[in-house]
Amino acid sequence: MPRITYIEDMNKWRETFQFSHPVTVRFSETDMFGHLNNTVPFTYFELARIEYFKDLGFMKNWVDPTFESIPVVADLQCDYIKQVFYDDHLQIFVKAVSIGNSSVDLHYMAVKNEEEIVFTGRGTIVQISRHTGKSIPWNEDMKKLFKQTSGLTV
Amino acid sequence: MPRITYIEDMNKWRETFQFSHPVTVRFSETDMFGHLNNTVPFTYFELARIEYFKDLGFMKNWVDPTFESIPVVADLQCDYIKQVFYDDHLQIFVKAVSIGNSSVDLHYMAVKNEEEIVFTGRGTIVQISRHTGKSIPWNEDMKKLFKQTSGLTV
Amino acid sequence: MPRITYIEDMNKWRETFQFSHPVTVRFSETDMFGHLNNTVPFTYFELARIEYFKDLGFMKNWVDPTFESIPVVADLQCDYIKQVFYDDHLQIFVKAVSIGNSSVDLHYMAVKNEEEIVFTGRGTIVQISRHTGKSIPWNEDMKKLFKQTSGLTV
Amino acid sequence: MPRITYIEDMNKWRETFQFSHPVTVRFSETDMFGHLNNTVPFTYFELARIEYFKDLGFMKNWVDPTFESIPVVADLQCDYIKQVFYDDHLQIFVKAVSIGNSSVDLHYMAVKNEEEIVFTGRGTIVQISRHTGKSIPWNEDMKKLFKQTSGLTV
Repeated sequence: MPRITYIEDMNKWRETFQFSHPVTVRFSETDMFGHLNNTVPFTYFELARIEYFKDLGFMKNWVDPTFESIPVVADLQCDYIKQVFYDDHLQIFVKAVSIGNSSVDLHYMAVKNEEEIVFTGRGTIVQISRHTGKSIPWNEDMKKLFKQTSGLTV
Repeated sequence: MPRITYIEDMNKWRETFQFSHPVTVRFSETDMFGHLNNTVPFTYFELARIEYFKDLGFMKNWVDPTFESIPVVADLQCDYIKQVFYDDHLQIFVKAVSIGNSSVDLHYMAVKNEEEIVFTGRGTIVQISRHTGKSIPWNEDMKKLFKQTSGLTV
Repeated sequence: MPRITYIEDMNKWRETFQFSHPVTVRFSETDMFGHLNNTVPFTYFELARIEYFKDLGFMKNWVDPTFESIPVVADLQCDYIKQVFYDDHLQIFVKAVSIGNSSVDLHYMAVKNEEEIVFTGRGTIVQISRHTGKSIPWNEDMKKLFKQTSGLTV
Repeated sequence: MPRITYIEDMNKWRETFQFSHPVTVRFSETDMFGHLNNTVPFTYFELARIEYFKDLGFMKNWVDPTFESIPVVADLQCDYIKQVFYDDHLQIFVKAVSIGNSSVDLHYMAVKNEEEIVFTGRGTIVQISRHTGKSIPWNEDMKKLFKQTSGLTV
């Protein structure tokens, strides 16, 4: 497997996650090779990311159709490390690793049986206007919350 | 939008695709923001990739449960360039950009209305043994086919 | 297999469809038993139903967020007749069989290779207000269109 | 809403479930109308049904590729009673209501906030041979287990 470009030191990297959300692999998420289909980790990333945003208190506004801004995904990637099977219990970790003016770079880690990393990922989220599609800066409270829950000091 | 790391020159890059497969965005693939959900492009990549492998004559063996090897995804990424909506007609292009011993790096491009690139992607596929999980080298015919259909000269 | 309650005479029933939409079974729609997962036919029903509504000219209003009414599904059922596999080419037929004040009963038929019925279905769609959730009657034009495209004479 | 054909008395019916499994509606399971997409309840039925089969001790054999029999779905239906939204917490109940030679009729009930029934369903599962596709009778232990966990006395 090629080195994962967004992880310098896997052991240090895995220690800095604080938030996680559990998922159990559904039968309908396997494919005829008996593995978790490769498209499903992105569903798990979304699930964990939204739980993380809920935990930060951001989701309530974003799902309100009269609210100005929504989050959109700018890019997303996944590195598959071990095969995952039906009924595996995974913990999906998510953290903010760098915060831009209106964007945030999130990292993801899926851990099986509280030990084994089965896949990792990253991706940028941007806050945009529901109406114009233009980016909308985070306010100071949002930035502070991202930092607190991710062990970021800058 | 940050520069897409796997594309040097977008205009040159888009010219080198030969194979594509059409998809139309389904209603069930949108989410409550009215956009194509961010997990769906990976489904389209899989769809186009498998059509490409079928076109090369590789799928018949891989879906045969008695055949030794299967393809697995090592990594996958997507860059979202424009919002995509219900009923949009997309052409999903796929090409091999570098061929390893038992792996191949594929690039993807989604084009709307034969003109506008709405998202791009890439990812490595590895041929492994169904039983041991170990990588299995491509044979010479497979390598040749990858090269022919991708304009690779090496 | 038990008799399908909504079909009296299969041969007569299959002759009365006029509208259909093609689908090809995706790899990601199979499960580890190698069959089309049982949840997917409902996705195909939705796909065909929406194409049918588009064909009737109804969808343009329904996907407009400022339009008063939307269609909702009141019930849905599927009878699985033959196993369906990866890459099978299906034609999904849909027709209106009875039209209520604000509802319509639709029947579905999936045909493989232009001959073999692999699954059938039915379900009621109701037109409701996006805001109050109350049912909204079809106008006369809508009723007429349902009848014309389904060979209904009443 | 038309009467649900497989439920005679809703109050009596709901009391006879013993097994249930929790689900929380994912963002990716909503559609652009902001509701749970109508195809998703069937995914929840499968999820609850498989947990039920696991609880009975049946799944271990069925997911073993060398085991003779697998369960297949013969038919499936869902009645949508209340709209379901992103992040709703549901309990999906499942019970066996009649046991044939090689088939079982299962009923499903989705309850929100431990009180409100949001959708119901039913469907027949048949045990078949993985190789011939022919039905395989339940053994006596399996029949006994279905009866015990469903309050069936016959």
